[in-house]
Amino acid sequence: MSSKTSAKPFSVRDPNYVERVRNAFARQGFLRHVDARVEEIAPGRCVIAADFRNELAQQNGFFHGGLLGTIADAAGAGAAATLIEAHQWLLTAEYKINFLSPAKAQRLKAVGEVARAGRTLSVSQVHLYGVDAAGEEQLCALATVTLMILEREAPSLQKNQGAQS
Amino acid sequence: MSSKTSAKPFSVRDPNYVERVRNAFARQGFLRHVDARVEEIAPGRCVIAADFRNELAQQNGFFHGGLLGTIADAAGAGAAATLIEAHQWLLTAEYKINFLSPAKAQRLKAVGEVARAGRTLSVSQVHLYGVDAAGEEQLCALATVTLMILEREAPSLQKNQGAQS
Amino acid sequence: MSSKTSAKPFSVRDPNYVERVRNAFARQGFLRHVDARVEEIAPGRCVIAADFRNELAQQNGFFHGGLLGTIADAAGAGAAATLIEAHQWLLTAEYKINFLSPAKAQRLKAVGEVARAGRTLSVSQVHLYGVDAAGEEQLCALATVTLMILEREAPSLQKNQGAQS
Amino acid sequence: MSSKTSAKPFSVRDPNYVERVRNAFARQGFLRHVDARVEEIAPGRCVIAADFRNELAQQNGFFHGGLLGTIADAAGAGAAATLIEAHQWLLTAEYKINFLSPAKAQRLKAVGEVARAGRTLSVSQVHLYGVDAAGEEQLCALATVTLMILEREAPSLQKNQGAQS
Repeated sequence: MSSKTSAKPFSVRDPNYVERVRNAFARQGFLRHVDARVEEIAPGRCVIAADFRNELAQQNGFFHGGLLGTIADAAGAGAAATLIEAHQWLLTAEYKINFLSPAKAQRLKAVGEVARAGRTLSVSQVHLYGVDAAGEEQLCALATVTLMILEREAPSLQKNQGAQS
Repeated sequence: MSSKTSAKPFSVRDPNYVERVRNAFARQGFLRHVDARVEEIAPGRCVIAADFRNELAQQNGFFHGGLLGTIADAAGAGAAATLIEAHQWLLTAEYKINFLSPAKAQRLKAVGEVARAGRTLSVSQVHLYGVDAAGEEQLCALATVTLMILEREAPSLQKNQGAQS
Repeated sequence: MSSKTSAKPFSVRDPNYVERVRNAFARQGFLRHVDARVEEIAPGRCVIAADFRNELAQQNGFFHGGLLGTIADAAGAGAAATLIEAHQWLLTAEYKINFLSPAKAQRLKAVGEVARAGRTLSVSQVHLYGVDAAGEEQLCALATVTLMILEREAPSLQKNQGAQS
Repeated sequence: MSSKTSAKPFSVRDPNYVERVRNAFARQGFLRHVDARVEEIAPGRCVIAADFRNELAQQNGFFHGGLLGTIADAAGAGAAATLIEAHQWLLTAEYKINFLSPAKAQRLKAVGEVARAGRTLSVSQVHLYGVDAAGEEQLCALATVTLMILEREAPSLQKNQGAQS
């Protein structure tokens, strides 16, 4: 990733980051419920996809905006998760998504890339594409995801405080 | 709604707005898939709720952030939809959600209120609450939703342009 | 502040918070350059104002959107600053502003209120009003500000990391 | 601009777009007040810069976050303005900025690029860089700007409605 799209170069701190990130996704009931699948995991990068079906649509037959936000959050969090230590975990502090064109496609693909990997906060940018039968991609939404990095050992954080502790 | 929370007083232009908004939700496969239900519709206001189940959760047993964003989008759009004309429709241009505390509750409730009902754009604010068995509510997230108002008659808008036409 | 607008009740940890917040504003050259003044400081609340002049306008004679964002950031940060400890300080992690109506007024007023005062992050909501000669207020913008709380003693944070350390 | 960063290819509708965009900036008192200058105007792209001085700083000697938001808004609006027709004009509907690293530099540079040029709304992404004496650039913030396109002829829009009409 060039200096144009991230604040600093990335360094991987946990050699088992691929398995760790895959496991984190597998434990999330909502991501399974929307049939989100991990397509790629690399340092500072995560790609999530979902195939079209009516359960993921709004009234015009496009992918629903709430689903796009969900997939964007997952791709942004997954990208940030590749760069944290093995004992840490992430909570989304906030995300924001702009819809650029109707997501009318066979497949939705969210490409999350880390813009800043900090000690306490990380920020990912996500580009969402509609992919048609021929594999043509059209940008349909842009998202930014801010994530808070937590130390897994801290029990008070887990029990009492969550996203904004 | 006082002058503190909206730019101008509201006027309802479609006397059948309750039925129209309910129908719009009923046609959205994704909202049914996440079991979102309409709890209240009033001028400039819409309340959406969902009950906890594992299919709506992340790995810690909280409601998933993507679900919160979905419910927030729906409540914000529903609030704005109460104030448009019968032949108009809405597309979400963007939304943004801040997570304030873990959404660990029996029920999630999103209260959407219009902050500005314009000719082309409307803006809604959404407060999201976790509701426990005793009915106690805790604010768990804040969202802002920007919606574009489209004329249903315009075929070129529907066919070619969508969210950002 | 009711349970409707903040996640938890507030507690002031630094009895000298008013003086501390005023001093923090006084040291910021940009806030002086735009003639922003503190109108009110209370637990979890801060009001900032600016009087209209051409140096603060865009081409139509309204307050410039960049100025509104600046005042919103200041009011949101000021509100959060009332609740931190004496040795802590804040950096804005992100802010977002929606413009609702043209800010054509004699005076601009930004009311910042804390929605969540956490250990690491705080979130403030800001309502911006145009105030005319008769004192009438019209809501012209809404903003959300996320702030990171830093320990002033940590030299590595100050030197190397800043907003996203 | 590749298909990766914008929803559709761009077409310039006003051959005098460079002069028109420069004039629009020159008429904005606030942009002169903060010494923002236009560095580049190209189809779907606008670069704005400002040199460091204490009037643009916060208390640690970094560029103030409100200034970064102002420059980001200007770069995003300028990029979108290159693609509208000669008789149209823009109002910012909303913007959002994430701060990635402290903007401690001799010069601040905001690169705005259009992600979607629609009929009613345009969306720009902005990368902000701190530039040191040697010309080295560091990404310090990311912003998204949503702009509403207005027809200049419509007097009711100009008089009564503004940003969200």
